[in-house]
Amino acid sequence: MTGVSGEESVSLDLLRQKMRDFAKERGWEPYHTPRNLLLALVGEMGELSEIFQWKGEVERGLPNWKEEEKVHLGEELSDVLLYLIQLSDSCNIDLGQVALRKLQLNAVKYPVSK
Amino acid sequence: MTGVSGEESVSLDLLRQKMRDFAKERGWEPYHTPRNLLLALVGEMGELSEIFQWKGEVERGLPNWKEEEKVHLGEELSDVLLYLIQLSDSCNIDLGQVALRKLQLNAVKYPVSK
Amino acid sequence: MTGVSGEESVSLDLLRQKMRDFAKERGWEPYHTPRNLLLALVGEMGELSEIFQWKGEVERGLPNWKEEEKVHLGEELSDVLLYLIQLSDSCNIDLGQVALRKLQLNAVKYPVSK
Amino acid sequence: MTGVSGEESVSLDLLRQKMRDFAKERGWEPYHTPRNLLLALVGEMGELSEIFQWKGEVERGLPNWKEEEKVHLGEELSDVLLYLIQLSDSCNIDLGQVALRKLQLNAVKYPVSK
Repeated sequence: MTGVSGEESVSLDLLRQKMRDFAKERGWEPYHTPRNLLLALVGEMGELSEIFQWKGEVERGLPNWKEEEKVHLGEELSDVLLYLIQLSDSCNIDLGQVALRKLQLNAVKYPVSK
Repeated sequence: MTGVSGEESVSLDLLRQKMRDFAKERGWEPYHTPRNLLLALVGEMGELSEIFQWKGEVERGLPNWKEEEKVHLGEELSDVLLYLIQLSDSCNIDLGQVALRKLQLNAVKYPVSK
Repeated sequence: MTGVSGEESVSLDLLRQKMRDFAKERGWEPYHTPRNLLLALVGEMGELSEIFQWKGEVERGLPNWKEEEKVHLGEELSDVLLYLIQLSDSCNIDLGQVALRKLQLNAVKYPVSK
Repeated sequence: MTGVSGEESVSLDLLRQKMRDFAKERGWEPYHTPRNLLLALVGEMGELSEIFQWKGEVERGLPNWKEEEKVHLGEELSDVLLYLIQLSDSCNIDLGQVALRKLQLNAVKYPVSK
């Protein structure tokens, strides 16, 4: 599956498998309990928030941000995603499938007004 | 692309497109500024944490959790993911691609010991 | 010690003692482990963030907020404070004293420019 | 007002006044809008969580922690408190008074069973 940019579309399953391999190769699995991963996720949410903390309102698309700030932001967004995937995996929850289901629930909860 | 379970693999691009359509159909786009979405994400992180708050240590795979608790957990994990995808999109950042790049950086930062 | 408003000044020690009594009277002490309280604190941070999430930039003093919104905000700020005090207590840390010390460290770290 | 330890009891009013002076002396007031301070608070919550993230369950009183870890923890707890006080102040909310009121509400919400 290839996107408009010519880059391969990234699936949650692919990232989950890569994170599993990464942890296994380093012997980190014993540390990857649900509450440990949840607190690591909160830690990364904090780092993500720090990027935005003194900026006042920020426009969509970050028109005035420096390239290095955007790179840093991408890294923090990634860290949140990667821990979220690991947390889900440690709970035996298929994040991609539950997200699709949640979208269906949201569509029922918030119907489009005509 | 199909997983072992026979279910289609869910890509971040697919979820991003669904979230864009969802917001557009409801006229919610003006609210989806980066800091609004970031605070919504923090709100969902809080709801996720509440599920784990009085449980003491939790074992991998959640062996003793009731089915309804797991369903609730799946919904909160999804909410975090969906706001994370929208936040990334509002910042013009391709979450899947930056996550792949971050995995490469992590592999360099934490080499496998032989 | 009395403030300008004629109301008694509230100390961290007073709140800590009230929280200890509160937990003891209800038999909640076994649940008040450091990581349980930390996750409860994160949960309250989420509820606090939800109040601000769709508001765009907010002016100091909340000039356009309804009275009921301010009351709700006061309750969420309180919840964060009360769990923070309990978390500190569960770690045997005197929050008031360490905060005074941190202020001194901050004054050294960020000297006033002349 | 003096505690059992001979140290002065620390009031929320005192800390609020010190934070006001601190910000004023450094010309930081323009940055101290409610949402900026809220995101700074979330950032500090993240740093606090990082201290606990790989530890598994932690016993009350932190019996096996090194002194330097406890000092670090005290600093992060302080940072959360100090931003919480500043956030409340930026919203014109008297944190000590609303916390006392919240305790009364909690006592009604969770009556002691006989």
